[in-house]
Parts: sequence; structure tokens; C-alpha cells
Amino acid sequence: MSSYDLLIVNGLVVTASDIGHYDVAIKSEKIALLAPRGSLAGIEADKVIDAEGGYVMPGGVDAHVHLEEPPLFGKGRSADTYETGTRSAICGGTTTVITFAPQSKDRTSLLSVLEETHKKAENNCYTDYSFHLLLSNPTPSILNEFPKLRNEGISSLKIYMTYEALQLRDNQILDVLLAARKDSITTMIHAENGDILSWMTDQLEQRGLVEPKYHATSRPQLVETEATNRAITLSEMIDTPILIVHVSSPSAAMHIRNAQTRGLPIYAETCPQYLFLTRDDLDKPGFEGAKCVCSPPPREGKEDHKGIWLGLQNGTFTVLSSDHCPFVYEDAELGKKSVIGAEFPLGRFRYIPNGCPGIETRLPLVFSEERLELTKFVEVTSTNAAKLYGVYPRKGALLPGLSDADLVVWYPPGRLEEWRVRNQDLHHGVDYTPFEGRLVRNWPRYTVLRGKVVWERDGVGVVGGKGWGRF
Amino acid sequence: MSSYDLLIVNGLVVTASDIGHYDVAIKSEKIALLAPRGSLAGIEADKVIDAEGGYVMPGGVDAHVHLEEPPLFGKGRSADTYETGTRSAICGGTTTVITFAPQSKDRTSLLSVLEETHKKAENNCYTDYSFHLLLSNPTPSILNEFPKLRNEGISSLKIYMTYEALQLRDNQILDVLLAARKDSITTMIHAENGDILSWMTDQLEQRGLVEPKYHATSRPQLVETEATNRAITLSEMIDTPILIVHVSSPSAAMHIRNAQTRGLPIYAETCPQYLFLTRDDLDKPGFEGAKCVCSPPPREGKEDHKGIWLGLQNGTFTVLSSDHCPFVYEDAELGKKSVIGAEFPLGRFRYIPNGCPGIETRLPLVFSEERLELTKFVEVTSTNAAKLYGVYPRKGALLPGLSDADLVVWYPPGRLEEWRVRNQDLHHGVDYTPFEGRLVRNWPRYTVLRGKVVWERDGVGVVGGKGWGRF
Amino acid sequence: MSSYDLLIVNGLVVTASDIGHYDVAIKSEKIALLAPRGSLAGIEADKVIDAEGGYVMPGGVDAHVHLEEPPLFGKGRSADTYETGTRSAICGGTTTVITFAPQSKDRTSLLSVLEETHKKAENNCYTDYSFHLLLSNPTPSILNEFPKLRNEGISSLKIYMTYEALQLRDNQILDVLLAARKDSITTMIHAENGDILSWMTDQLEQRGLVEPKYHATSRPQLVETEATNRAITLSEMIDTPILIVHVSSPSAAMHIRNAQTRGLPIYAETCPQYLFLTRDDLDKPGFEGAKCVCSPPPREGKEDHKGIWLGLQNGTFTVLSSDHCPFVYEDAELGKKSVIGAEFPLGRFRYIPNGCPGIETRLPLVFSEERLELTKFVEVTSTNAAKLYGVYPRKGALLPGLSDADLVVWYPPGRLEEWRVRNQDLHHGVDYTPFEGRLVRNWPRYTVLRGKVVWERDGVGVVGGKGWGRF
Amino acid sequence: MSSYDLLIVNGLVVTASDIGHYDVAIKSEKIALLAPRGSLAGIEADKVIDAEGGYVMPGGVDAHVHLEEPPLFGKGRSADTYETGTRSAICGGTTTVITFAPQSKDRTSLLSVLEETHKKAENNCYTDYSFHLLLSNPTPSILNEFPKLRNEGISSLKIYMTYEALQLRDNQILDVLLAARKDSITTMIHAENGDILSWMTDQLEQRGLVEPKYHATSRPQLVETEATNRAITLSEMIDTPILIVHVSSPSAAMHIRNAQTRGLPIYAETCPQYLFLTRDDLDKPGFEGAKCVCSPPPREGKEDHKGIWLGLQNGTFTVLSSDHCPFVYEDAELGKKSVIGAEFPLGRFRYIPNGCPGIETRLPLVFSEERLELTKFVEVTSTNAAKLYGVYPRKGALLPGLSDADLVVWYPPGRLEEWRVRNQDLHHGVDYTPFEGRLVRNWPRYTVLRGKVVWERDGVGVVGGKGWGRF
Repeated sequence: MSSYDLLIVNGLVVTASDIGHYDVAIKSEKIALLAPRGSLAGIEADKVIDAEGGYVMPGGVDAHVHLEEPPLFGKGRSADTYETGTRSAICGGTTTVITFAPQSKDRTSLLSVLEETHKKAENNCYTDYSFHLLLSNPTPSILNEFPKLRNEGISSLKIYMTYEALQLRDNQILDVLLAARKDSITTMIHAENGDILSWMTDQLEQRGLVEPKYHATSRPQLVETEATNRAITLSEMIDTPILIVHVSSPSAAMHIRNAQTRGLPIYAETCPQYLFLTRDDLDKPGFEGAKCVCSPPPREGKEDHKGIWLGLQNGTFTVLSSDHCPFVYEDAELGKKSVIGAEFPLGRFRYIPNGCPGIETRLPLVFSEERLELTKFVEVTSTNAAKLYGVYPRKGALLPGLSDADLVVWYPPGRLEEWRVRNQDLHHGVDYTPFEGRLVRNWPRYTVLRGKVVWERDGVGVVGGKGWGRF
Repeated sequence: MSSYDLLIVNGLVVTASDIGHYDVAIKSEKIALLAPRGSLAGIEADKVIDAEGGYVMPGGVDAHVHLEEPPLFGKGRSADTYETGTRSAICGGTTTVITFAPQSKDRTSLLSVLEETHKKAENNCYTDYSFHLLLSNPTPSILNEFPKLRNEGISSLKIYMTYEALQLRDNQILDVLLAARKDSITTMIHAENGDILSWMTDQLEQRGLVEPKYHATSRPQLVETEATNRAITLSEMIDTPILIVHVSSPSAAMHIRNAQTRGLPIYAETCPQYLFLTRDDLDKPGFEGAKCVCSPPPREGKEDHKGIWLGLQNGTFTVLSSDHCPFVYEDAELGKKSVIGAEFPLGRFRYIPNGCPGIETRLPLVFSEERLELTKFVEVTSTNAAKLYGVYPRKGALLPGLSDADLVVWYPPGRLEEWRVRNQDLHHGVDYTPFEGRLVRNWPRYTVLRGKVVWERDGVGVVGGKGWGRF
Repeated sequence: MSSYDLLIVNGLVVTASDIGHYDVAIKSEKIALLAPRGSLAGIEADKVIDAEGGYVMPGGVDAHVHLEEPPLFGKGRSADTYETGTRSAICGGTTTVITFAPQSKDRTSLLSVLEETHKKAENNCYTDYSFHLLLSNPTPSILNEFPKLRNEGISSLKIYMTYEALQLRDNQILDVLLAARKDSITTMIHAENGDILSWMTDQLEQRGLVEPKYHATSRPQLVETEATNRAITLSEMIDTPILIVHVSSPSAAMHIRNAQTRGLPIYAETCPQYLFLTRDDLDKPGFEGAKCVCSPPPREGKEDHKGIWLGLQNGTFTVLSSDHCPFVYEDAELGKKSVIGAEFPLGRFRYIPNGCPGIETRLPLVFSEERLELTKFVEVTSTNAAKLYGVYPRKGALLPGLSDADLVVWYPPGRLEEWRVRNQDLHHGVDYTPFEGRLVRNWPRYTVLRGKVVWERDGVGVVGGKGWGRF
Repeated sequence: MSSYDLLIVNGLVVTASDIGHYDVAIKSEKIALLAPRGSLAGIEADKVIDAEGGYVMPGGVDAHVHLEEPPLFGKGRSADTYETGTRSAICGGTTTVITFAPQSKDRTSLLSVLEETHKKAENNCYTDYSFHLLLSNPTPSILNEFPKLRNEGISSLKIYMTYEALQLRDNQILDVLLAARKDSITTMIHAENGDILSWMTDQLEQRGLVEPKYHATSRPQLVETEATNRAITLSEMIDTPILIVHVSSPSAAMHIRNAQTRGLPIYAETCPQYLFLTRDDLDKPGFEGAKCVCSPPPREGKEDHKGIWLGLQNGTFTVLSSDHCPFVYEDAELGKKSVIGAEFPLGRFRYIPNGCPGIETRLPLVFSEERLELTKFVEVTSTNAAKLYGVYPRKGALLPGLSDADLVVWYPPGRLEEWRVRNQDLHHGVDYTPFEGRLVRNWPRYTVLRGKVVWERDGVGVVGGKGWGRF
């Protein structure tokens, strides 16, 4: 048998269902062989990684990433380019990101939106990538473009039940779902009731309650729970699958679970912010809380976190994504602080750009909690996203000849001393992380993208440059 | 690289999470290599199976099989020995069976029960095998034997909430669960309320309602649903996992689902009889219905079947076993007909031996329905049972160097014309099958046990003799 | 003790909680005495009714009646004036009706709407009456009128989640609920998702499916269930009571029940059409089905009826009203047939005036089913509505000196031979009844309004003229 | 009209559905007239009570009272005779008590048990009274006595799912329910799983955990919830009503609520100890906690109380009884302290007589919380019990000529200064009250039994002697 490009030996290999000590050989960017531990000894290879008993997994697939999108909220502007965002991703073990190609309401062709997004990403990425179409104006001619989108390799789109600039009414959502069904497109839905939370926001403003913490007051769990139930109803009307993104509320999760119990094709996603942050993080001194302003907001406390972990454990959630949505904090023109002015020295939460960074910390944070079985961890952070969004088995699996050689190699248990997340160690373009100071027990030691080592934590860091990533 | 014992090429390989076209090489009874399709061409091998595009899966694990047990019901006697039972298994794609080592109430040592059961199985099996201890009298000294059981490779036991000879009271079940928790033993529970159904049986007998169909009347869904809820309570009291066996009722399944939703470690099993048979099968002319007398009984109709399928699809059920419990029909001394006498020309359902054969038809019947995703099919018929009962990753997986080379190769889709199940084509020791005449769309073409082909459907049939199977 | 205006003796008196044989004396329009059976013998009285063992109950309160409202749907016009509607009411045992004072979107003052409605009703009614304000445009100035409404004796309003001309968005509903809470006004909500059903209607029209039966297709149970859940959410946001009107769907009822289980102040109403009519009634030959076109539509069948009866029995429903909404059938200009034209010979369901008559048949139909305990019957058809809408204890009770002497006296059980409802025997202005031909076992023999007999079924019929009714 | 024995004027009269200011006239032990306020002025009467605006209600019916029963637990003996118990009742506004006629397992005739109980009560009672049969050994001959019991005026019986001396197995319960159905007898069930709690008790004793507080540990909510679900199943099997007594656990209440939602005839009772006491009351210094040892035990805290209040408010609970079960505390031979010995200086909770006194405090405590609407208060403390146990409308209502003149007159709101419950002010035979020191806002000012004032709080106290009470 011929020689290989890379061997990964002595690892504990984990996939979405299996775990075992065996070795992996890579050739021509693909998984080439899975073989008994030690049996590849003596085989010729360009490079050999000795995992030393550490975990070897399919590279992470982060299916919810915002990069270089036009501003939605006041003056905030995306702090990450495709370059910085995907660089941050590989340092956290993620080898594929799926970002958004955003249609603003005035755009009359999705294809041109797609083309533009391609231009931004091309030759700029450290990871492989794909796009979801973000749909804000589903006119008949827009919906007619769906077959062409499929031809362009796009199999998913996202719509909103909130945000004035993006919110669709229920009849528009039905239009989208009907068209999506015809072309087997997966529809992602941001489920918060925009009418209610606008009303709440107005009420709070009238009372002068505008500090960051009131962001959470303006969108309580009921707002998400209601919209989730409504989204499920709309899916049931059309009999087509949907995925509810970034679920934060246990009661919303319960609606999803009940729908799944009835056999409806309802999928759901959650994110690290709903496993680690709470409302108290919005109520830090001064304007600090603005760092954690995202939508839905972090919830009340431990009980809510427990409910979301439970949903990961029992299968309610299909995927765990980062919802990486990067805004710098300090910049008075483009950052979160841009909402601070003479009249509003504590800012107006209504205009704080919504979103937190998290593409690099996603895997280490969740891994360190050890609350998910290892196979479940791979399933929700990699395999399921690949299956849902049409890149399986190239991504999310280790099938010989079929899967790209995208791998993340962790340290052996106990090797890495516990250390704390510091923004200065991260590789994104944001000047903070909401997870500053959290303890982490392990971290990706090597990240391999299509057979090439792109991240080597010990000493070297990011290996090679941007541009290896492909659509 | 050295030569191999067996290559399986051109198959569509399915595991519990993945599916893809790649090839498998086997050596020294183990999976030796997983390699890209075609890449093994030219490699030396003793034997090559061309799967021709058919499915290749880990061999079935049937975790609920009764063989050579002493009689529980009147005069009925097990119609299958370890030899005939495991022969039937391999012909249906099952390579591992887990049978019961039954303690009768007067036995004071589980170890001696285990020893006896070993004697029955040793050198008589066509499949690999393991045992569950069947516990009917959990005295303190019996419970003290648990650590020794673990040393003997036994990691599961079964208890009953019904059958006079076996029924434990709730406090006895707590004793068992507490001991099982200490030794990490999985407890399987037959959940029907014995007190209620004895009472119902007495009532029916008083009214002269003794024909086979009244077996179902005597144990309605409520009887199972109540006991299921109680079993869950007992598990929650002790905070230790249980598995509810042969769940037949959607409302029992809902209790299980709700417990799982709350995060409790409740597992559940269902069987083909609850997916295919109905109460009408008990109400056939004459005494024919007795063939389908098992406990719990087949339920009312399509809606119930739908509920059980749904439970398989959404993960409520962890495993799908056969509950193969073989009694001949015609024998007036030892068979189901032994309950027919001068006084009761239509039999007395109370004494009809409870149980149906199904070890050989389990995989083909369920596969043919095409209601489960292929990965889910492997998960519930093989992988999960292996994980639950301590034989993973030797069984239920295809991990190089770790997994036994137990495989089932199906025909390519469409190759096998649909045909109907006929008992004359089966290999068990029973003179009927409750599934007589059902359409099947595929059937295991080859079964491989530890690298050795043991079943080759086309022309050859059972290959080699008993005794290849091991504990 | 002085003489009385009217004595009702020998009746079985039923109130919302009690039932017993005792006698009732009336004076100056009020209940004057409740006394042991026979004890009033010899007392002076202007008139004595011998109930002969028949039931004596507080007069019915019908809290959902549309009279003389401006057209909502194409050319349909209300077929009942206050005169004919309330005449029909007393003949069916109803002594108080609560109708709607409808604000069209262009009206800028509720008080003027109220004034107009007063003019229509004044001196024209056979029953006592009150109004709900029907709110379609809740501007700040409109909401500021609420305190004045309370001064005018109005304590309830109704809003819509459907019908283009009336539909409020969620934020508008929050405005209304907040204002209603301040002034202790009860908000009634028509809960169907207008966006979904408009979309469904468009889809059906595009396919040429425009016959009456498609009215039901356009608004399936999901449409009502979703809106019900949303209405409950809105109520919970503001922490203020609501009443969901005319609930037709068991799954909507289940949302209500669950909210009540959690202790939320959610009230609900159902109507006879959801206890007696089914979808098949919309699918009668020709255009006949249009007679039963109302919203929500009659549901699928017996199981749905059972669910609604169950909701009445277990307290989910607070009130049972008629939703009397009268349109003639035959008139090509103003009736249901007005939607038939050259282009649409089978009509367009979208424009069929929604609504059925039922003010006269409400009590007899439900009474005849004998599925409610007698006290529950009084509770849901009279007492609870009086309590909810601020007319208790003047209405809905028999409290000496406090309650108006509004009574309905039924025939003794078995006295009235079963007979069938025929429109020709009814007293409304509509040319059909959706309940034509249904068997009835009893009927109000006498109706008494403030001490005056206004209906005497045997021979006399309506007694006295319009105008006795008061606000 | 002739003269009256008693007039109660100027009261706010409250029944199970109505509330209003009117006056009540009494004659020959019955309600004679309900008349407008003030209209009885000048009428001749032996006695006139001016309620001065205070509430006037039907006298309380306490349907769960243990008096003079033989000992169940070690040496504890009932501290109240029929005389002291019913004296205590009238001082708390209760005019009817339903006690138990207890069959011990060796008794072969219920009729003789009944006769004995009659002897104890006759001429000794201050209230009217009736009996539930307490059944511990339902042999066929015992069940055959049911028709005779009905003839003796007994329409209810109670059975236990716990307590070794009383516990019935599920098949025995089915026997009882079947017999009860035939004779329209209401079956009350004490729902705790005896097998589980015995096991728990053994476990705790083995660990030396025997102090009073471990009583609660031995019977957690799961024990009650499981048995409640099982009792509902048994009722559903036989299709006959049951009443679950003294429900303490919100999750048990939820099972009951769900059964009611499905339309099953499941009734339930709760008691003041589950609205006011918590587990902390069992964990007082020394042996003090034993005072509050009852079964089920008081639950964890405020959330549990809230769940039980909610069940009263939303109709889950049909009746609120005292479960008055009197044992003195101090007596080393017969009291709670009888379990203290040399070996167990802190007592053994297993043998502490289970039960608390509460017949006198039931109405004032619950009334003072003001968490129930007044009509609901009357419904659950009086009317519903009368209806369920066959004494309506003689008891629990104010129907002229039909209802006994049993009334309780409260102080006008605000008249009575808040004061604290002190055992020295109570009239039972027990040397403590578990409610010592609780604030109360009102108290029965007068209690009237069949027209005779038997309690007059201001100055006089108990009026007249024992013996006025009748069966």
C-alpha cells in the first residue's frame, strides 16, 4: 500500500456513535484508512501525529456564524472578517463554518447576494465554509430562485420572527416554508415575538429603563416560548422541517420536545451563552453588561442552564453552535459603546448591537463541562450540523475515502493544566470575550483541515495562512 | 501490509451514526481495516465478499431471548435449545444473543444457576452469547453475590412485576436496585401489574371467558402503564438506571418518554410483536389465537403500532429485541395446546405458555418496513444493546482492532424479490411463526461471526456447525 | 307579610350550586322570598305559576350576541334587529343578552359608538341587555376612554386576532390589556391566527377551491390553537384576565386548561355549534353548507364534540353562549347567497357572511343532551356570565331582594314529548336554523323577566310587547 | 305567617355559588325563609341574631375525623372522645362531622363495627355526625354487607394502600371498588405506597436515623405520587369514582388533575396541615417535631403549599377536611411520647402515632388566608362534602324547608382583632395544636345546629350540652 500524507496514531477516536483506540491514515485530503492501533507502524507518511492517548474527533462544524454582515443595529459593525473569524475557528477546533449571506429588504435577487458573499469569503478563509441564505423579503420572485440556490450548493435559509428590518409575518413564513419544502431546503427560524418585545422595549424606554440589563427584561422567556410554539405550528401546517436557532429557554425547549414526541420534524439549536451566562452578566457595573447583550438574552440562572443541558443530553437539541456575532466593545463609532451618548450615558439597550463572539471557545467550554457523553459531544458539535446542512459525509464523519480529513486532536486527559479563558489568547477580531476567566480543562492541540495541520497549539499556533479554506 | 482473512467490498456500510460506501478487511476474527471503496483491490485475502451495493452492518445483537428455560406455565416447555435458537438467529442476521439464566425461587445461589446455564450453552451455539440473570428471590445472600456475578462477566439482571412464580413486591425491587447500583448492574424490568391481571383473570374465568383472546382482555394497557410508572418511581427512589422490557403500550411509552425528558436514566425495549401484531391475531378461529399469546399482549390496532414506531424514531426506545420465547403449538403435552382438555376444549388462556418465536424474523421484518433511518436501525437492533449490556465495542460496532468481525450483509435494494415469511423456511424449533405470510423486502444474505461466514442464503444456508459461538 | 306579584310554586329550583323543591315569591321585579314548598299557600299574589315539578332556574344570560352590526363580509347584513333578536331570546329562556357595540376602524370615540348602540336597543328589547365594546382601533385616545366606559356601565370589550377589518397585532393587544387592567375591564378575544388563515384562503382560491366546505379547510384547529396559546401568553405578560370566546377545538381547550392548571386567570366560552355541528354540515349538497359557515368552523366529528363537552363538565369553559350572528340565507343581496354570482356559482367561502343564529335554541339543545349536571347547566348558561360581565347578583341568581325576578320554568321531565327543532317555530329574523330537525326533550314553558311573564309556551307564546327590556 | 325560632339578619350570606345581603329565618330546625334584608323586621321570633354585616354560611362539614378509634401505632390512644371532638368542632364552626367506623382485620362483620361506633357516638355529640366504614379486610362476606350498610345510612368507605395493619393489595382494592360500584358507595383511598415506605423506614432505622424528622424522609412525595397514580388506574379499571384523601403533594395533585381533565371521576381532599406546615415543623428541637408527625407528612416548603392552594382554587380538590387525628403529646404511656424509651431517647419515628388535631382550627385558618373566594370556601369546607357523602341538601346548603338550620356566623370583617391560635383556647382533648401561634383574622362568632345556637364566642362559649348532635 502506498504512502500517506498524515498518520494520527495512539488516539482515542470519537465519532457520533463510537469511541475506541485506533489509528487514522490520511491521503489526498481524505480519510484513507482506519486501522487497529499500532498497525500503521512502519508505514511511510509525510507526517505523523502521536495523539498520546488524547481524543481524536471529526473537526467541529459551527453552523451559526455571522461574519462581515451589514449593520442591523445603529452603528455596530461586524468586528470579524472572514479571515479573522475563520482563523479564530481553527484555533478552537472548528474546521467548517456556515455563515450567512444576508438579504436586506431592498435586494431583489438572492443570487447576487450569494455572489457578494462568495467574494468576501473566497481566498480569505482558514476553514472550509458554506452559507445559509438569510431571507428578509420573500417575494414571489425571490422564492422562485430557490432551485438555483440549490444548484449553487445552498441548502438552508434563515428567517426572523423579530427585528424590524428582518421580521416576517406568519403568512410570509408560510410562503417561505412552502417554497423550501419544494426544494428540500432546511429553514432556520429565529423565534422571538417581535411585536411583543418591541412593545416591551417601548414601555421600558418610556420609564427611562434603558441600561443594558433591561435588554433581558424586554424579551422574557415567554416571548421566545410563544414564538417557538408558533413556528412549530407553521411547520406543521406545511408539513416541512424547521430548525429553531439559539434556543435559550427551557419552556421553549419543552415545546420543541413535545413536537418531537408527536413525531414532527422539528430541530433545534442551542449555544454556549445559554449554558454559561445568566442575566447577572447583563447587570455588571457600568456598561459592562452590554458585552453579553445578545438575543435571546442569557436567562435567569442555574435552573435554566440545567434545562438546556438536559435538552442536549436527551436529544431535544440537534446542534450546538456558537452564534458568533462579533462586535467590538470599546469603539464609540462602531462598537457596542456606540450607543452611549450625552443623552444616554448608560446607553440605550435597544440600539446595542446584539451578539457575542464565541467561535473559538465553543468546543473547549462545552467539552470541559463533561456533561455530555463524548459521542453526544461530537454529534451536536459536528456530525448533526453536517447532516442537516448537506455537507455530510464530507464533514462531520471519518468515513474512508468519503470524509475530508478534518480532525481535531485534544490533549490527553489531565495533560493540560486547567487554565482560564483570556481574550488576549483568542484569535478573533473582538476586544473581549463574554467567557473571560472561565476555567477550561482541555483545548484543541491540533486542528487538521483536509489533511493539513492548520493549528498546533504547542508553541506554533496558527500554521499556514488564510485561503486553504474552501466552499 | 499482510494478507486478510476476509474482505467485504462494494458495500454500503451502515453503523449507528454513519453510512457510506467503503470496504472492510477482516483478520484474526477482528475488523482490521476500513478503507476507501476499491482501495483493497489486489490485496491478498482468503475470501472476498462482493456486497454488490448491498448494506453491510454490524451483526444483530438480540438482547432478549429465552432458551431452554424451565417451564413457568403449566406444561409448556421451551421448543428451542441453545443450538436451534442460535442457529435460527444467524439465519436472520443476529450474531450475538443474550439469554436468561433463570433463578427459580428455591435456588439459593445465582452462581450455580449461572454455571448450569453455561453448561447448556457451551459448544452448542451458532452465535456468540451472554446471559442476563433472571432473579426471582432476592434474599440478602443472593444480593451479596452480585460482585461475583460481575466477575463472571454478567452485568445485567431481569426482574418481574408479574407472574406468581416470579413477581417481586416493590420493597424487594428496591432491594435489587440498591444492590444493582452498587455493582453497576443494569436492571431489566417486566412491567405489568401482577395483582391487577390476576384479578382480571379470575373475573374472566368466573364468567367462563377462557379462550385465547381473553388473554388480552385480562391485561389491558392500563396494567402495563401503571407498572411502568411504578418502575420509574422505584428507579427514581434509588437513582439508578433501569430498562423496561417489551413495551407494548403507547401510554407506557409516554411515561418513559416523560421520565427521559426529566433526565432520568430510564431505558426501554420494544419487540416486533408490538409493531406488527394486534389483538385480532388473538381472536383467530378455534385455538389459533394461542400462537400469538405473549405478555404484554399485542395491542388494539394501527394507532398503537404507530405509537411504538414513533417511540423507536424519536429515541424513547433504546433497543429492539425479539423476546424470542419458543413454544410449539401442536404438542398436547408440551406445546401451547397442552392447555386444551376435556373440560376446556378451547383452552384456558391463563395456562397458555406465554411467548412467541421471533429471533430469525426480527431484523428482516423491521428492516422491510423502512420506517427507521438505517443508522437508527443499527442503533436499536445492535449497537445500543451492546453498549447497555457490556459487550461494546466488541459487539455492535466496526472499530478496527476492537470490534469482532460480526457482520450482516443484506441484498442490494431491489435484488431480492419481495417474498412472504413461511415457517418452513425458518430454522428454529417451533412449528409456527406469528408472522406467517408477512411480506419481506430484504433478508440477510451473509452473516459473518468473528470473521467466519456462518450463513450464506443463496443456495448454501447455514455454513459450518454449532460451537463457533462463544460467551 | 304583604302580597306578592307572582308566586312560582311546586318547582324544582336549580341554581349554580343547589337544587331543591321550594317556592319562590316575587315582588317589585325582584326575588322576594324563597320558602319551603307549600308554605306560600294562601298568600295573596297577583299570579301563581304552578311549575308542577318542572325545573325553575335563573333566566339565561347570553353573553355573545351580534345584533344590528354593520356588515363585515361583503354584502351580508344582520338579519335580526334588537327587537327580533331579543324576542327570539325570551322564547328560548334567555332573559339577558349582551351584544356588541362595534367600533369600526375609522371611529375615534367609543362613547359615540356606545351612544349609537343604545339608540338601537332602547325601547326595542324583549330582554334586558348590556353591551361589550368591540374594539378595532385601540389608539391612545380610545384607550383613554376606558374609565368613562366604566362609568357608562360597560365592563367588557372584545378584540380580534383575525378578520382584516378588525385584527389587532400583538403589540396592540398588549396596549388593550394594559389599559383594561387599569380599569378592571374583562377582555374577550377571538383567537384565530388571521395571517395563517388568510394565507390558507389565498391558497385555496388559487386552486379554485371556493365552495362552502373549504371554509373549514382554511381555518383548521391549528389556527385556533396557535392563537389561543398566543392570547394566553399576552395575558400572562400583562397579568390580567382574558376570556377566549367561542372555543371550538379540543386542543385549544387543552391550552386553556393548562393555563388554568398553572393558576392563570384565563376564562373560556364555547357555543352549541361546537357541540352539535360538524364539518359535514358544511359539505351539504349545493350551497346549503353556507348556512353553517361560522368562525371558528364546526370541527371534524364526535371526538371533537366530546372534547368540548368534557371542557364544560370539568370547568375549562366558564360560559356557554350562542354567538348568535344572524344572516338570512336566501337573499341574493344581503344574505349568505349574496356571494353567489355568475363567476362563482357555488359562492366564494371567503365572502360568505360568517355566523349562525342560535339565541333561541341555546338552552333547549344543551339541556336536552343531559350531559351537564343541572347546577353546572345554570352555572355556564347564566350565573357565570352574569358574574364575569358585572351584572351579578342582579342577574344569574335568585337572591332575595337582590336578584331581578328573571326566571325560566321548564316542563316537568317527560311532560313535553320529544319534538324536533323547526325554524318555522322560532322567533328570530333568520330564514333557517343550523339545528333544523334536531330532537329536543324540553323547552322553556314560561320565561319571566323582572317579575313579568314574557313567554308562555302553551298556547300564548310571546306575552306583551317589546320595550320591557332594560340596560 | 307564623313566628320563627330564630332570625339571622344583616348578614352577608355565602353559599357555594352565591353571596349577598339577605336575611334568614329558621323554624323547626330547618331553614324556613330567605328574605330581603330588613324585610323580616317586626316578624315574631324567639331569638334574633344581628350579624352586623358578618358572613353567614352553612355550617362546616368535616368529612375526615378520627375519634375513639383503637390504636394503630404502638401505645398511642385517641385523645378525643366523641364528646370532646365534636365540642371542639362546633367551636370552630363545624356542625357535621363524619368519623370512621374502623374494621380491624379480625372483624368479620361491618354491621357490628357500625353498631359499636353508634354506641360511642350516641348522645355524646355536640354536632351532627355520620360514619365512613374503614375497611381493612374485604372478604367476600364483608363485601356482601354493602347493601345493608346503605340501608343503615352509610354511603362511603375508606381503604388504605399503606400501614401494615390496614394495607390492601391492588387486587383487594379492585374487589372493594367493584362492590362499591354496585351499591353506589364512595370509596376514599389513603394513597401512599406502603411497600416503599416500609423499605425506606427499615433503611433509615439501619442507619440509626430514627428522630421525628426522618418520618418525612421515609415517605417522600414520590411515595404518594406513585400510589395516587395507581389508585387512579384502579378506579379507571372498574370505572367507578374514588376520592383520594389528604393529598399533600403537588405532583400527586397533578395526577389527579390530569385524570379529571380526561373526564375520570376522581375526587380529592386536602387538609390544613398541607397548607401551613412544612418539613421544618418536624425538625424542631428535641422531640417537639413529633407533634406534627402525620401521614403524608408536611412537605418541603412554600412551593408545595402554593401547589396545594392552587389545587383548591382551580377545583382539583373537592373537599378540605381536617384529618383530625388526636393524640396527646406528653403522656409516656398513651401519647406521642410513648415511643421514647431508654434505648431510643429521641423516639423512633416508626412508632410515633401518626396524626394531628385540627377540627377546630380548620375553618378559621383557611378563612384567614383569604386565598379562596368566599363561595369556593363554602364549597370545599361544607357543600361538596355534604354532596359526596349523601347528606345534601340537609347539610351544606340553605334551601328553605330542606336544609337543616346549620349555620356559622363570622365576625364582620375587621371586627375581630387579629389574634394567635393558642391551644389553651381550644376545646379538644389534645395538649397541643400544630398551629400554635398562627395569626387568625376571624373566628366563628356563632354556630347554629338545627336552629339552636350551640356556640357563642363572645363571653358565653359552648352553649348547651352534648347530645344535641344526631346521626
